Amino acid sequence: MRAVIIAVGSELLGTDRLDTNSLRLTEALLRHGVDLRRKVVVGDSEAEIAAQVALALADAELVLVTGGLGPTADDVTREAVAAALGRELVFDDAILRSIERRFARMQRKMAAVNRRQAYVIAGAAVLANPRGTAPGLRLERTVDDGSGSIFLFTGVPVELYGLIERELEPWLALRSAGRALETATLRVACVPESDLEEMIAPAYAEFGREAITVLASPGDIRVRVTAAGPEAERTPRLRAMTERLAGLLGDALYSRREEDDLETVVGALLRSAGATLATAESCTGGLIAERVTRVAGSSDYFLGAAVTYANRLKEQLLGVPAALLEEHGAVSEPVARAMAEGVVGLAGSSFGLAVTGVAGPGGGTDAKPVGTVHFALAERDGVTEHRKVVVPGDRERVRYFSSQVALELLRRRLLRVAVRA
Amino acid sequence: MRAVIIAVGSELLGTDRLDTNSLRLTEALLRHGVDLRRKVVVGDSEAEIAAQVALALADAELVLVTGGLGPTADDVTREAVAAALGRELVFDDAILRSIERRFARMQRKMAAVNRRQAYVIAGAAVLANPRGTAPGLRLERTVDDGSGSIFLFTGVPVELYGLIERELEPWLALRSAGRALETATLRVACVPESDLEEMIAPAYAEFGREAITVLASPGDIRVRVTAAGPEAERTPRLRAMTERLAGLLGDALYSRREEDDLETVVGALLRSAGATLATAESCTGGLIAERVTRVAGSSDYFLGAAVTYANRLKEQLLGVPAALLEEHGAVSEPVARAMAEGVVGLAGSSFGLAVTGVAGPGGGTDAKPVGTVHFALAERDGVTEHRKVVVPGDRERVRYFSSQVALELLRRRLLRVAVRA
Repeated sequence: MRAVIIAVGSELLGTDRLDTNSLRLTEALLRHGVDLRRKVVVGDSEAEIAAQVALALADAELVLVTGGLGPTADDVTREAVAAALGRELVFDDAILRSIERRFARMQRKMAAVNRRQAYVIAGAAVLANPRGTAPGLRLERTVDDGSGSIFLFTGVPVELYGLIERELEPWLALRSAGRALETATLRVACVPESDLEEMIAPAYAEFGREAITVLASPGDIRVRVTAAGPEAERTPRLRAMTERLAGLLGDALYSRREEDDLETVVGALLRSAGATLATAESCTGGLIAERVTRVAGSSDYFLGAAVTYANRLKEQLLGVPAALLEEHGAVSEPVARAMAEGVVGLAGSSFGLAVTGVAGPGGGTDAKPVGTVHFALAERDGVTEHRKVVVPGDRERVRYFSSQVALELLRRRLLRVAVRA
Repeated sequence: MRAVIIAVGSELLGTDRLDTNSLRLTEALLRHGVDLRRKVVVGDSEAEIAAQVALALADAELVLVTGGLGPTADDVTREAVAAALGRELVFDDAILRSIERRFARMQRKMAAVNRRQAYVIAGAAVLANPRGTAPGLRLERTVDDGSGSIFLFTGVPVELYGLIERELEPWLALRSAGRALETATLRVACVPESDLEEMIAPAYAEFGREAITVLASPGDIRVRVTAAGPEAERTPRLRAMTERLAGLLGDALYSRREEDDLETVVGALLRSAGATLATAESCTGGLIAERVTRVAGSSDYFLGAAVTYANRLKEQLLGVPAALLEEHGAVSEPVARAMAEGVVGLAGSSFGLAVTGVAGPGGGTDAKPVGTVHFALAERDGVTEHRKVVVPGDRERVRYFSSQVALELLRRRLLRVAVRA
């Protein structure tokens, strides 16, 4: 099956917004083996929408239209698609009543313009949208030169996601027998892409390059695995590929879930170890603490951070000896170690994670160029580890990459703690 | 003039990437009063690209194509556009020599596949791309039913941006006499959109609604002003509108530069006041410190932060009395005040900014629901201000909005300091 996505909305033709809805639609399409041929963004113009829908029907069996179903005069998707198909708009009492009930529940008066949303294209199936006032519509067209299906969806993301899940996915599942895809994601931090490629080379040889995609961003890599075919074949195949890759990646694998970031995984490990964390940050300026506390419930294991940008605070808060700062400079192994051990003493945490470096653009020297970062991980009554990394790139990249290295250092230590226990 | 943008690349039809190049192209188009009719994304298919180019030429005078000019077999934009126009590809020796020189400079051997990039469509003007190997092409087509211009650009962002600046913009400028636009942006933090609309209503009445656009995101609003017409009229008009809006916004206006975030403005104010800052953060988990230190050179005025997630650290580091925590709870006015004053004492900074709140999703009570946040701003030898806000939304939003409120509180204080001085 071939598909075309059409996003409607003049705001999507400006300089501030992109059509991100299509990413969710694409996910659903790919999962069911549908071939996405193109994506089109058009403004709130009835003629333009109608022309694009007609073109899409000429070379795809599935047309997905988002946006332009609102109540105001510039919402013209219904009219445009009706025109493209040569059909009438008919008033649907049931939809009006459902919109009225929605307003009543919110104790608001329905504006007269909302009546527009009760018009449907003749012959359309109405798709309930409990999160908003604009229902989706599904139309089937059968003509001499082939048949096509058209879905009209609201452009409001949270409403659209619900409609994809409840309406589009089941419809695709019925039609995708044997063409459906299953995917899995393996996540890896702080491994250079070329090293990763070498690690997983045996899996390429075994399963073929097409099945495995490597998506790299600074300090973070997603290895995506895809299996096609009938369920009885593809599910075991996906599992076999995933296990093989997991074996090849070893400890470098931090998560098998697309949505789990490093801070989520580190949080879960701290929680299961019954351990607590505090950070001592210089060049990252609080970024590690900020990432760790993005995770709901992190107050169970995160005690706090000393962001010691000024050297005086490194001395005063973390007890870094002034002599150490003077002799080695703030960006050095001894200072990183003293910071990590200092924050454990200060917070009474199980672990202390310290970062000190030159984020740039200023402050670099020949001996310590921009991007030089020292990391230390202290454990209460344990040894302190140190690592030095020179991160290429600008200030933002140095800071983000540093937060990845720090969290990865802690994750690997927590894995060893788990083995010890 | 009407335009269509066509982005080529199968990777842009997946779930991981969006065509962001079109935003830069759109900026250039809008600036020169060109009407963007639609944006299309197609895969690396010669037939599909050719079809879309032909369609675009049918209803636009300007067609901008990005991507598919690389050296590999799946780069077929040149072939597709040649086919759409019924023209030949011809080999251009000068391009080949320029690519060879580029490789020589990098001390690398040119791969044989790069020869492909030396083919141009007959009649095309070659647009130099000093940042890469794929030159741009410009074609003019004159037919009975109207003429059209087509630009082919590489999809590599940094190369594209150079081509837009050196080739597209001057070309547009020559053709946009009287239709060019100028824009200005005014930025405002923590003002509800409806309040802002009321504040600027007189400007709507004076200059018309079309000239002023309000772009709201949580805790931050951009007011964008646009003026059209000949330069001698539009520049004074833009200035008049900007000044009128600035007058209506008063202290709420934090910047007249699109690219200046609140942390940049606060940093500049601290610097010019010769003042220093330290933060004491609970629910924001270090986000304020992280934002302040995103700005290069922030070590001149930012001393550090105490991220006191655990109550014990609030006592120990910031000297918040245990009795206060017990009596009022960590999320309270007295504790916020004690944190702000505590961090000034600890860091010896001119200002101390404190935040304590319930970020959620857990931890809310009837008296202190999720989103309840207390802010305090202490000044060394000065008064301490307090503010309480209940922020709607999820954890991420509560945290980000809180960082905006805190920075805005400080910005307004620094404005008063500047007046005092």
